[in-house]
Amino acid sequence: MLKAAIVGATGVVGQQFIVALQNHPWFEIVGLAASERSAGKRYGNAIKDEKSGAMYWFCNEAPEPGVLEQEVLLGDTLDASKYDVIFSSLESDSSRQLDAKYAKTTPVVSTAAAFRYDDDVPIIIPGVNEEHLGLLEYQKKKRGWEGFISPQPNCTTTGMAITLKPIFDDYGIKTVIMTSMQAVSGAGRSPGVLALDITDNVIPYIPKEEEKVQIETKKILGKLNSNSIIPANFRVSCTCTRVNVREGHTETVFAETARKAEPEDIVKSMKKYSKKFASRGLPSAPKEMITISDDQFRPQPRLDRDNEGGMTTTVGRIRKDVAFENGIKYVLVSHNTKMGAAKGAVLTAEILAKSELL
Amino acid sequence: MLKAAIVGATGVVGQQFIVALQNHPWFEIVGLAASERSAGKRYGNAIKDEKSGAMYWFCNEAPEPGVLEQEVLLGDTLDASKYDVIFSSLESDSSRQLDAKYAKTTPVVSTAAAFRYDDDVPIIIPGVNEEHLGLLEYQKKKRGWEGFISPQPNCTTTGMAITLKPIFDDYGIKTVIMTSMQAVSGAGRSPGVLALDITDNVIPYIPKEEEKVQIETKKILGKLNSNSIIPANFRVSCTCTRVNVREGHTETVFAETARKAEPEDIVKSMKKYSKKFASRGLPSAPKEMITISDDQFRPQPRLDRDNEGGMTTTVGRIRKDVAFENGIKYVLVSHNTKMGAAKGAVLTAEILAKSELL
Amino acid sequence: MLKAAIVGATGVVGQQFIVALQNHPWFEIVGLAASERSAGKRYGNAIKDEKSGAMYWFCNEAPEPGVLEQEVLLGDTLDASKYDVIFSSLESDSSRQLDAKYAKTTPVVSTAAAFRYDDDVPIIIPGVNEEHLGLLEYQKKKRGWEGFISPQPNCTTTGMAITLKPIFDDYGIKTVIMTSMQAVSGAGRSPGVLALDITDNVIPYIPKEEEKVQIETKKILGKLNSNSIIPANFRVSCTCTRVNVREGHTETVFAETARKAEPEDIVKSMKKYSKKFASRGLPSAPKEMITISDDQFRPQPRLDRDNEGGMTTTVGRIRKDVAFENGIKYVLVSHNTKMGAAKGAVLTAEILAKSELL
Amino acid sequence: MLKAAIVGATGVVGQQFIVALQNHPWFEIVGLAASERSAGKRYGNAIKDEKSGAMYWFCNEAPEPGVLEQEVLLGDTLDASKYDVIFSSLESDSSRQLDAKYAKTTPVVSTAAAFRYDDDVPIIIPGVNEEHLGLLEYQKKKRGWEGFISPQPNCTTTGMAITLKPIFDDYGIKTVIMTSMQAVSGAGRSPGVLALDITDNVIPYIPKEEEKVQIETKKILGKLNSNSIIPANFRVSCTCTRVNVREGHTETVFAETARKAEPEDIVKSMKKYSKKFASRGLPSAPKEMITISDDQFRPQPRLDRDNEGGMTTTVGRIRKDVAFENGIKYVLVSHNTKMGAAKGAVLTAEILAKSELL
Repeated sequence: MLKAAIVGATGVVGQQFIVALQNHPWFEIVGLAASERSAGKRYGNAIKDEKSGAMYWFCNEAPEPGVLEQEVLLGDTLDASKYDVIFSSLESDSSRQLDAKYAKTTPVVSTAAAFRYDDDVPIIIPGVNEEHLGLLEYQKKKRGWEGFISPQPNCTTTGMAITLKPIFDDYGIKTVIMTSMQAVSGAGRSPGVLALDITDNVIPYIPKEEEKVQIETKKILGKLNSNSIIPANFRVSCTCTRVNVREGHTETVFAETARKAEPEDIVKSMKKYSKKFASRGLPSAPKEMITISDDQFRPQPRLDRDNEGGMTTTVGRIRKDVAFENGIKYVLVSHNTKMGAAKGAVLTAEILAKSELL
Repeated sequence: MLKAAIVGATGVVGQQFIVALQNHPWFEIVGLAASERSAGKRYGNAIKDEKSGAMYWFCNEAPEPGVLEQEVLLGDTLDASKYDVIFSSLESDSSRQLDAKYAKTTPVVSTAAAFRYDDDVPIIIPGVNEEHLGLLEYQKKKRGWEGFISPQPNCTTTGMAITLKPIFDDYGIKTVIMTSMQAVSGAGRSPGVLALDITDNVIPYIPKEEEKVQIETKKILGKLNSNSIIPANFRVSCTCTRVNVREGHTETVFAETARKAEPEDIVKSMKKYSKKFASRGLPSAPKEMITISDDQFRPQPRLDRDNEGGMTTTVGRIRKDVAFENGIKYVLVSHNTKMGAAKGAVLTAEILAKSELL
Repeated sequence: MLKAAIVGATGVVGQQFIVALQNHPWFEIVGLAASERSAGKRYGNAIKDEKSGAMYWFCNEAPEPGVLEQEVLLGDTLDASKYDVIFSSLESDSSRQLDAKYAKTTPVVSTAAAFRYDDDVPIIIPGVNEEHLGLLEYQKKKRGWEGFISPQPNCTTTGMAITLKPIFDDYGIKTVIMTSMQAVSGAGRSPGVLALDITDNVIPYIPKEEEKVQIETKKILGKLNSNSIIPANFRVSCTCTRVNVREGHTETVFAETARKAEPEDIVKSMKKYSKKFASRGLPSAPKEMITISDDQFRPQPRLDRDNEGGMTTTVGRIRKDVAFENGIKYVLVSHNTKMGAAKGAVLTAEILAKSELL
Repeated sequence: MLKAAIVGATGVVGQQFIVALQNHPWFEIVGLAASERSAGKRYGNAIKDEKSGAMYWFCNEAPEPGVLEQEVLLGDTLDASKYDVIFSSLESDSSRQLDAKYAKTTPVVSTAAAFRYDDDVPIIIPGVNEEHLGLLEYQKKKRGWEGFISPQPNCTTTGMAITLKPIFDDYGIKTVIMTSMQAVSGAGRSPGVLALDITDNVIPYIPKEEEKVQIETKKILGKLNSNSIIPANFRVSCTCTRVNVREGHTETVFAETARKAEPEDIVKSMKKYSKKFASRGLPSAPKEMITISDDQFRPQPRLDRDNEGGMTTTVGRIRKDVAFENGIKYVLVSHNTKMGAAKGAVLTAEILAKSELL
């Protein structure tokens, strides 16, 4: 069993890490770390609100009793060398400092954006761009680290990059236009999205989100060079909005392909691609990377976010897009706190382990 | 005062007609008509649920006591010649028959889709395409009617067509890609959208909606020929979704212009256009056709749908769209049951009256 | 295996019956019946909306392929004698006629209210009042039926009756005051509760609900006489409201006991009672009839409705009620479409089978 | 014009104070104070989120431009003597210190709980217990202050106390049992109620709320002694819950009266009482303290919270309560941030002014 520590263990994503790891066949939760407010407490107390006694446990799956009893360590002083892998869900600012510190000795799989845009850092989505794993060796060498940082993409990027992958490979892509309708869990708990603001409403802006998705999508579908990744050569334009949905990001995608593709070609392309990844034997991998629905009223976040444990991206309404000579459009739902965050990071760790990078 | 009848008076849109007309300086509600279930009852009883006694009154504004006392007439046998104008919110099938019957003697302003796509029928948005009013004379002549049918656009078309108008006039348009997040009131009450289906959810499909918006937008911005309208020559592609919002459609628009336009050019263009219409002195007209917000987090349906009594389209996040060489993108909120339905139809009737077509 | 038919199979409760029965160790779904609109179609088509193609499947659990292929029979002409048990979710009016017809030959477990208040009809909640099963023999004899009708309680009664049971047995009850906050799924789909009406709202009235709960609670906790049930001798007063929750009824209960009981006595009483029932070996029975939460912020419908597959009633905030000399108050959450409807009816059928009444 | 300062001006209640005062005929907003984070900024900037630029303005009514330009003062060092009245919405801890400091020179109308339970402090609801105003003179003398503190009741107390007043006066009260379904705005913005927690949910506990309502109701309806208030002699028991409603608290009330009263007696009693207060000529007073609805489906928070500008309490479903020999039950909706907070405090200041206490 590989020894894992979770940093930022009390937050929404940290809790998802716990759920994703607590019965994992390869990893064992050996350390839980958080900020000063929680350090020194047993985990079960750390997630309790002192004033009210309420337990802030976000996930549907309950934490194991053993986890509740673990003492929370201080993230700032964590001795990373004791672990085989660090799962980090720090805020970007802390990530810049702490994840880098941990990476001196230990591989870090992080959900933070801090390192995503560095030249020597790949953004891995297993099943999409494992060839980018090669960059991690260069990163270690260049930075003089024994570990490395492998950041997850933004949760809004994940589903789109996965669904674009087979289209890109088979027909090429010239333009992508996407509107997201994002779940409130994506904003976490502090401050999170208030019911006061989102009930009976849509919020049409999420700071920095659109830029992230635009850059990451092209990097993920890009080509590995000796010491960097050359972004894929297409245009991406997004409008990212928040809707009153608890979990599961919905995205409408309009894509111009380089070569003509009918909707049924895209369906075939996705189906063929979708099964390839399953054969790898990774414990958290979905049986199908993409689940295609025939029902025009699907995908819906409430009905489809939990397909395959939240690890598949569900696609529907694949049809011609008349905006372009060669256009295709569809709708996707991707689970933002499963495949789009902690559980996706665990899947990355699995491919790292399989590739002998842990 | 012009004598008005409301057909479909008990439905969501019919009720909005009542609110829009009940203190109107030019129109007087002289007839209320509905289906057999309601005919013969006083209006106050017709909108009561027999079993439970609940009053199904949808609007925030209360009906006048006088309205509650009017006897509901049977739409099928309504003598349209008694009225100067008929406001109709019939379903498309009934509209085909009944609106046509009424139009033999009387101008009909209808929210149904039934006649929108006929060659001799304009889709009027006051402030956007009044030059299309000319087609009504041809329609009367061709059909041998003394009245005519003037259908309102689909509620999802309205806000987009209004905001595209100044862009189209000043910079030309080549492509429009739009994703709508539509309010549940757009589906009315029977069956309407169940809380069971939309709570914690997005429904990514609204039957026929996308086709309507795509065709109507080009017709509205088209050119009047002698006996038809030549659609504007650009491409429109939409994905229409339903979100858990009571009222106010939110739309993300991505547009490729024919000539280069910076975001600030578009703002100027919209502002200039926006005030022109106000000078016409129509009672239901907004002071500004388009209200532009500087706050990146706006427009939001709950906060902006009621701007100017629900008659202005609120636009925000006007910015460059990197998907196109000359691209612009923005978000709009339009009140689907005010400007997008009954109150918008009353505005149309006002321009008809002003143009001496009533 | 006992042969079961489901009548009203296309509705919300009918679908829950399918889910509750489709992998059941004792029952086999041999017949699916519904109204004329659906009869003759394969089930998979019967639950599809013709116009839009949408599949109206309410449950989170998917229907088995075999079920989708079964032909829907016409409820009106169903030959009940072919089945060992009929699960019926007809509306009250149809239930009066059809359930009675079926019961001539076959035991009927029904979710309708139609027969609940007849003298010779018990309202069975397994684990609460199995001694009332004795009345079924009398019912058969009196009505000259080979089967009988065993109605489930109203979904709002179930959780309250279960939690009052140990209090009633151990301390006696003089008064119960209850306010319910009921889920929208309780209103089914036609017409159901519109998002338009319940978003950002509470509806403080549910027709007939309060009377049902008041009468049923006393009957369920009543004493079996030779040929009727003498209602328990206490007062019940309710206010039933609808809130914007998909599933799971929340109820605040204030009870005056006959004998003094501290909150910890009530906890003990509930715990002792709770486990007794589990030993019976019924496939759908929860391990604990009542699940007690220590967290003051629980029970919550979203977090607790699915405890033990929706079959346990979760109770929290057990504390002194100062309104009475001997007062106790608490909050409960009960799953209205699981224990409170179809799955609860299957549990009843299990106790019927165990008692050799099927 | 009386000079008013608002302390806690950037919070939800502070903003409601601004709206309630900005066009007031008697008061003029001369000072706006808040914590260090905001002090020194112009108000328009103080309510802007620095990172995102979003303006956190809670109310539907916009702030006047003049207000946006005022400099925010530091609450800690505010010179209260410059104002005729201080409207304070500090948290309880700060209120203990700062409101007491301000009261040395100036009358303070506060929405905080800090002083509510002190013997020499009345909890005034204009129209309910103005005779308690007499205690303010004693408070000044006893504490050696030139001003005084007049705290508003908890927002959940207000509607209940108002509706109990005529019942108490005309029939006497022995017992009150109440369940509240409270709006999320009651929890303010920091931390407030997350959509993540309340969507598709009910939260059955609000820390300290029940105790507050139980004590305050009896104090408000109590009798003024020379130097304290003798609480009314009846029992109150509450369960306070949070539901997914933006504004407007809904409460189900079950009351045992001392003398027999039929529902129609209660209606008469409320109607008679309701109009008495209106004649006082206070600018913020509703025309009727209580608005009675005949529709069984009312009151509903979305439809009734804004009746009379949020200042009336809407009551419906007045009916017999079988739990008691002499029992009555009903449902009420009260606007928690209007009558239940800032605007209610302004109404209190009006009665203070009228009584020459300012």
